[in-house]
Amino acid sequence: MAGPVQSIERAAAILRLLAAGPRRLGLGEVAVSLGLAKGTTHGILRTLQHVDFVEQDAATGKYQLGAALLHLGTSYLDVNELRSHSINWADALAARSGEAVRLGTPLEGRVLVIHHVFRPDDTLQTLDVGALLPLHASSLGKVLLAFGTANLDSAVDAGLEAYTRHTLASADELTHALAEIRENGWGAEVQEMSMGEAGVAAPIRGHGGLAVGAIGVSGPVERICDARGRPELKLLTLLRETARAISRNLGAARW
Amino acid sequence: MAGPVQSIERAAAILRLLAAGPRRLGLGEVAVSLGLAKGTTHGILRTLQHVDFVEQDAATGKYQLGAALLHLGTSYLDVNELRSHSINWADALAARSGEAVRLGTPLEGRVLVIHHVFRPDDTLQTLDVGALLPLHASSLGKVLLAFGTANLDSAVDAGLEAYTRHTLASADELTHALAEIRENGWGAEVQEMSMGEAGVAAPIRGHGGLAVGAIGVSGPVERICDARGRPELKLLTLLRETARAISRNLGAARW
Repeated sequence: MAGPVQSIERAAAILRLLAAGPRRLGLGEVAVSLGLAKGTTHGILRTLQHVDFVEQDAATGKYQLGAALLHLGTSYLDVNELRSHSINWADALAARSGEAVRLGTPLEGRVLVIHHVFRPDDTLQTLDVGALLPLHASSLGKVLLAFGTANLDSAVDAGLEAYTRHTLASADELTHALAEIRENGWGAEVQEMSMGEAGVAAPIRGHGGLAVGAIGVSGPVERICDARGRPELKLLTLLRETARAISRNLGAARW
Repeated sequence: MAGPVQSIERAAAILRLLAAGPRRLGLGEVAVSLGLAKGTTHGILRTLQHVDFVEQDAATGKYQLGAALLHLGTSYLDVNELRSHSINWADALAARSGEAVRLGTPLEGRVLVIHHVFRPDDTLQTLDVGALLPLHASSLGKVLLAFGTANLDSAVDAGLEAYTRHTLASADELTHALAEIRENGWGAEVQEMSMGEAGVAAPIRGHGGLAVGAIGVSGPVERICDARGRPELKLLTLLRETARAISRNLGAARW
């Protein structure tokens, strides 16, 4: 059986490095970051540029991600079954709850947002699709961890950063919370990533009952939670019904 | 100077093939499409899978694009200067014109949509960001061609497909239309890609005055055009003012 192709792994590492941005990088910076010789790095960068995965700034000679990646990224969404089976349900959940709805799947120790329906009002909101959220400090992530879709070790490896004083920043606290989420069938995050913000999420199950992703509602803490700081029951009911409907759509048995 | 790295070029070709979808592909299909040995193809696919650029369906063993590409694609948008300098202006243009606004940049003989503001009404619209439009049959593309941002040869190579009876499907017709667009400073597309739809676009210039992209307004032909089938003057004025404002933002001299 063929082994991994080293130059492709290196090319992927360069793309990840450029995506970690926020700024363009020079040849020397890329080479040092990856521990590669400049000549090797240059050959990979030139090839990536040739296939439009990387662009070089004419004025500074520095590198940034290229346009072809945008098309590949949105093409990924077009064929994503979890997303295509969820879109109508997510729209309905946003309309009925009056809150923003997001769909997440695990990627390399974090949660990748693959769909985002804005809160149905006129406030300015930015699209989170493509963003990576921390597993331990988002309701989507905690649900993915609790139901085994994401791995606790990968969350610990990514670092349990304490975003606020409410973040579950130790493996013990997190393990305890995950057991409760499994018990309840849903998970919440209350001011654990950002003060004033909260979210609730539930697992989406696929064929065979395995959790394949999570759907969540998020917004200002005073809208998501009641006076005691617990998620609103009405919201939880809408969320869980939606997660169940999508799961059936994906071929999960009734549960 | 190092030459292009063959395995990276092949990996990019596989990703493009999967993006051309709509469906998952088996190892044999990928190998045949690219004219590669199965063993070579398998090594590349396994590496792409290892870096999350490709996913393998558990049930069928077939391949599709992977989640890491979505994050890379949206990271490309985060660092795109044309887009970041245009967002507020595009919002204002949509609000003032009452129509959908899109921003395009050339990619491999087509137009890549890098920003899309929905028409400000309650109709159902789908996000075009990441989509590829034909150069010869979109107002964005015709403007990119007319002002030298995209190459006429690359449009001809991509094929001048006749989408409707109004499409400029010959190089001669197209060349004639491009001269007129250069003369006017804007370009229109009236039912050339889809009956009932029309659009107008203008070039965005960067530092040194070179066109770096295009901004356009599009929608139902009866809203974009007057009774004689010509773009509404009020719309053209709003569009050209917007293109000029973004160009100044990007460092173009007044013109």
